[in-house]
Amino acid sequence: MSQKAFQDYYPENVAHCYGCGRLNTAGYRIRTFWDGDETVTRYQPLPDHTAIPGYVYGGLLASLIDCHSTGTAAAAMYRAQGREMDSEPALRFVTASLHVDYLKPTPLAGQLILRGRVKEIKGRKVIVETLVYIGQVVTVRGEVVAVQMPENFGLVAPHSDDQG
Amino acid sequence: MSQKAFQDYYPENVAHCYGCGRLNTAGYRIRTFWDGDETVTRYQPLPDHTAIPGYVYGGLLASLIDCHSTGTAAAAMYRAQGREMDSEPALRFVTASLHVDYLKPTPLAGQLILRGRVKEIKGRKVIVETLVYIGQVVTVRGEVVAVQMPENFGLVAPHSDDQG
Repeated sequence: MSQKAFQDYYPENVAHCYGCGRLNTAGYRIRTFWDGDETVTRYQPLPDHTAIPGYVYGGLLASLIDCHSTGTAAAAMYRAQGREMDSEPALRFVTASLHVDYLKPTPLAGQLILRGRVKEIKGRKVIVETLVYIGQVVTVRGEVVAVQMPENFGLVAPHSDDQG
Repeated sequence: MSQKAFQDYYPENVAHCYGCGRLNTAGYRIRTFWDGDETVTRYQPLPDHTAIPGYVYGGLLASLIDCHSTGTAAAAMYRAQGREMDSEPALRFVTASLHVDYLKPTPLAGQLILRGRVKEIKGRKVIVETLVYIGQVVTVRGEVVAVQMPENFGLVAPHSDDQG
């Protein structure tokens, strides 16, 4: 039996994210795991995921950092609470802010490895730093402020102030 | 004859970006225009571009901000140099850093409008602030530090320090 990823524990009603929802068959469906105190996601970009030809699209890199980091935030909060990820209530995090520094171009030449670490847990907020590696080289650094989703978030009908 | 977008002026060898390359048929192919001193991109997310069901995927929002802002940077540099966008040498910008504040969830309920403005032009660097609207409501604020691409960037074969 293969190891369960953080995303395998997301409740079904919040498992449709384009980046990390296991139920979104059009999306990236990233899978994240603990590696000691760090978290790891491996992702193989598609040939279309290009920026300048030969390099990985920066929007994909930002997307992977985002979802890797919210997954890390959830897993870290379970750990901080001394709970298994299959225990209730389920925890799911959304992104308050995302910062990405593109340190150097990322070659579109194989698997990317994202490694995350928790910088801070405070109340419902978790700050995660995520580095993107290709081989042993760090090409991108990301930081995400993730906030625990209100329990009713996925149940409220979407609206905006001026939409019919 | 329809108006040309900023991205229509990108040279062919740098027009394959997943977010803004007119030659990337799998990508978003955003199109950006001047509106006075602001720049505007309109984009209709697909049903799959979901975060929590009913809301737009944050990675897509980051991606749109990124490409809208690099397009804005290029257009602004032409303006600062008093040049038309079809004049030589062609200008193309890459992202040094991207910051996104998700102010509120963005409903997956129609067209998004991105509006950018230049905060600073200094040497080869342009800082752009981009807001994402749905209707009259701003849901996301982004800031991009864009840097003019070296002339030979797209011509150099990709590599990394430890890839064969």
